[in-house]
Amino acid sequence: MKFCSECGAPVEWRIPAGDSLPRHVCAACGAVHYQNPKMVVGCIAEWEDKILLCRRSIEPRHGLWTVPAGFMENGETTHEGALRETLEEANARVEIGPLYALHNLPYANQVYLIFRARLLDLDFSPGAETLEVRLFDEAEIPWDQIAFRTVRRTLTRYYEDRHGGEYRFHIATIEAADGRRR
Amino acid sequence: MKFCSECGAPVEWRIPAGDSLPRHVCAACGAVHYQNPKMVVGCIAEWEDKILLCRRSIEPRHGLWTVPAGFMENGETTHEGALRETLEEANARVEIGPLYALHNLPYANQVYLIFRARLLDLDFSPGAETLEVRLFDEAEIPWDQIAFRTVRRTLTRYYEDRHGGEYRFHIATIEAADGRRR
Repeated sequence: MKFCSECGAPVEWRIPAGDSLPRHVCAACGAVHYQNPKMVVGCIAEWEDKILLCRRSIEPRHGLWTVPAGFMENGETTHEGALRETLEEANARVEIGPLYALHNLPYANQVYLIFRARLLDLDFSPGAETLEVRLFDEAEIPWDQIAFRTVRRTLTRYYEDRHGGEYRFHIATIEAADGRRR
Repeated sequence: MKFCSECGAPVEWRIPAGDSLPRHVCAACGAVHYQNPKMVVGCIAEWEDKILLCRRSIEPRHGLWTVPAGFMENGETTHEGALRETLEEANARVEIGPLYALHNLPYANQVYLIFRARLLDLDFSPGAETLEVRLFDEAEIPWDQIAFRTVRRTLTRYYEDRHGGEYRFHIATIEAADGRRR
């Protein structure tokens, strides 16, 4: 951020009075511009003993596989966001179930919320950001071609839980490889 | 948002190519400025059979009671945010436990994440945004002076669960009184 989104004047990077962290502060109108983490919402869409994965047609991680997920939008709930992303990326209709995993990615200023969901029919197809959509059983999961560590971790827990006979809610933090936080 | 935070030129409110929702788009440099929901993180801090509440010294809801909670910051995890807010608002040290409740507030573009937590000592005091901090047992909870519906709902579930003998994770949506979403 270089300019104030309220008045167009240049912003400074400093700690506002009464605050404890540096913020973008407008030198002209005094507006303080906060920046906060974003939520990524998505789902593990289940059909019998298979799950739905999408192969990405966009960067980052073009060509790799993920569960349907994306940035939550203003004006929607977490489960509405997961439903929308599944429709956009896989043209797939799901019934959203329980929250399954929350992953903190503090270095990326993101929190991933992945629900379990029930795929309602087999009429799915690639959306604009997807090359290919298909159902995988456990033996077919392309573990070395999963797009994101959060997704790999979520699916690993998912199959552990399935073998253990009970799906439990998971919460965990994924740190940057170099330990940085911002 | 009136001006582009990258170049300072006026922004337009329109649907960018390939998108489905209107965004603030810079007429000069083309930057698309996304806006996403924010997370509010906090905790129910327990000491024996009591919980810690803070009376707000700021608007909104000056003078009313809440659990310690506030906007999650970039570079932190959800539990780190809850820990920090509890320290800032109540000068209280806690050990964060399981996630207890997720409330969607789509009309406010917020998601509340409230953890259960264990208060580590009785050396607490009002922070800058707090008039008063104290422990309440269930009979003392000031139900008609709770600052936010999310907090009232969370505490209602909390005591129901306590009476039922088991704390379960809750997820729910709180709609605006007039039904608006934005």
